[in-house]
Amino acid sequence: MALPVRTSFKHLHRFIHKFSSPKRSLSSGNTEPPGGGRVFSGIQPTGVPHLGNYLGALENWVGLQSQYPSVLYSIVDLHSITQSQDPAQLRSNILDMAASLLACGIDPERAVLFQQSQVPEHAELSWILGCLTSMPRLRHLPQWKMKSKLKNEGSVGLYTYPVLQAADILLYKSTHVPVGEDQVQHLELAQDLARIFNHRYGDLFPEPAALLSSTRKVKSLRDPSAKMSKSDPQTMATITVTDSPDAIALKVRRAVTDFTSEVTFDPETRPGVSNLVTIHAAMEAIGVEEAVLRARGMDTAAYKALVAEVLIQRLTPIREEIRRLREDRAHLEEVLARGARRARELAAPVLREVRHRVGFC
Amino acid sequence: MALPVRTSFKHLHRFIHKFSSPKRSLSSGNTEPPGGGRVFSGIQPTGVPHLGNYLGALENWVGLQSQYPSVLYSIVDLHSITQSQDPAQLRSNILDMAASLLACGIDPERAVLFQQSQVPEHAELSWILGCLTSMPRLRHLPQWKMKSKLKNEGSVGLYTYPVLQAADILLYKSTHVPVGEDQVQHLELAQDLARIFNHRYGDLFPEPAALLSSTRKVKSLRDPSAKMSKSDPQTMATITVTDSPDAIALKVRRAVTDFTSEVTFDPETRPGVSNLVTIHAAMEAIGVEEAVLRARGMDTAAYKALVAEVLIQRLTPIREEIRRLREDRAHLEEVLARGARRARELAAPVLREVRHRVGFC
Repeated sequence: MALPVRTSFKHLHRFIHKFSSPKRSLSSGNTEPPGGGRVFSGIQPTGVPHLGNYLGALENWVGLQSQYPSVLYSIVDLHSITQSQDPAQLRSNILDMAASLLACGIDPERAVLFQQSQVPEHAELSWILGCLTSMPRLRHLPQWKMKSKLKNEGSVGLYTYPVLQAADILLYKSTHVPVGEDQVQHLELAQDLARIFNHRYGDLFPEPAALLSSTRKVKSLRDPSAKMSKSDPQTMATITVTDSPDAIALKVRRAVTDFTSEVTFDPETRPGVSNLVTIHAAMEAIGVEEAVLRARGMDTAAYKALVAEVLIQRLTPIREEIRRLREDRAHLEEVLARGARRARELAAPVLREVRHRVGFC
Repeated sequence: MALPVRTSFKHLHRFIHKFSSPKRSLSSGNTEPPGGGRVFSGIQPTGVPHLGNYLGALENWVGLQSQYPSVLYSIVDLHSITQSQDPAQLRSNILDMAASLLACGIDPERAVLFQQSQVPEHAELSWILGCLTSMPRLRHLPQWKMKSKLKNEGSVGLYTYPVLQAADILLYKSTHVPVGEDQVQHLELAQDLARIFNHRYGDLFPEPAALLSSTRKVKSLRDPSAKMSKSDPQTMATITVTDSPDAIALKVRRAVTDFTSEVTFDPETRPGVSNLVTIHAAMEAIGVEEAVLRARGMDTAAYKALVAEVLIQRLTPIREEIRRLREDRAHLEEVLARGARRARELAAPVLREVRHRVGFC
């Protein structure tokens, strides 16, 4: 029986777009990845994203839609149950995540947005790839190593999690996968499995390339040595994209800084204020130097008020759109249903070919 | 990467019917197991069965069709790829196994005969159950222990094999599962997983009961201390159901016995001749005592001629029917396609309910 798992890797695939921007074409009905490549990324249904998710991944997801001709974003609920989940909460988190992605700018006309469990081919390909994966190969991968701290008592799902990730990616013959540093080894497994499959059964899968994140790492407002995290027990540590203006102002005001009143950017020696600068710069789409320049003459308190204001400006329309979308559950379900149909249109012929190559038909 | 696996458990679920015989009703379109229960069993696509398969499992499969109102038999190709397979060979083995099952008396009007990989719900449920299975739980199960002799280098598929078996069984809310002694621990996992799921998500799965085999263990004709096995390198050791009369006569004539010419049944001290008595008795559907009685006055050579003759009588119609069916590939494919449709009709609503309980929808 799976025990509740406390790991901090809630969000799987993260990335930033610092790559060439192939021309966009609306050829996503084709099973072959179009010339410019196909991006796949997934996010766990943790409900409403926090600022770290938004700046670390979602903003970039939005950008990738106009940079790659084919883009798939999956709410990876099959992955989420490798940790204990309350079913009602999970159900609501899936819709909240869908609403949040739409509100943040994921356009279901340009990206295939879908829920992983609604596409059976993920689990099917995962089984087949599992038969090509040796047990020791998974033993040292991050998701298991983190868990093994808790006495090696994770579930089979947690152990085989990277195989399902590989299936997620290869199922669409994805060519590009945005990853954070903590996911590089998982992508290497997907690359290995593409090679192993191609070698054994003939070329089928492109080896997916990493879009390595230059990640803007947003830190906890209460402990700037730690990442901002949804599971942080200190509610003042994390800003979610649905926080009210008052909540945002309060959390930023209470953010841990230091006893120097001037605003500078030095993450090593002044992690607290530097975290605010990072947030400020990201929110205004400016460099940290420019952000520091704009803070000239302000003490920390005044700067916090500025950062809070910038956050409120940027997050208010997102918050309001999420509220609107949450009230239209039928629309969210329809978006996900349509996404699942489009994902299956891409996945089914690939899996059919895999089944044939393996000898099932 | 999975290495070729040399284990001897090619045939998964074996059983004998020594149970009450509930009345048969044609209610297999219903998702709830009918009053008299539902039997599930699977066999790996090893091609044409040998005498050990036939007497140990298939004869009983045929009998169960008239004893239970709902019976499913699956050619478990997803399991087969936990060992290295040649795709062309696997493809042909699947059809050969289908032909053999039909020729041995499996009636697709009474049993749902299908190929596991054609029903995606098996892999899907397997993922979900894997998230309820702890890693250590699988470490001591037979299929892995056998493999771990080869330096613990098996594939993820081999390790998680019993989870897929549990999914095979629970997906149809099966109530009865024929098992040989070597599969009891695997069925216990399925029972555990039914309990764990029911406890966490509310009652859904019956705990499947074992139909324990009183197995007629057919031994190798060359080494009567070992089971008859398809992978036996000595071709004279194994009789397949498609062996020609001449081949059968030769193999039985060459069967290892001892220097006592009288025919007796004593598996401990006279394993060779006792194996022939076992085969004789099973083929004639008589007890071993009766078989020994019929051998009175014969020396071993004469008895071998008798046993060969009995085998030829019983296997000839099966061999001819397999030959006929092999020539009608379209028919075999249609039988399997129809079986897969019927299996999905049963599986889909169960998996839909599972998905809902888990929180995916």
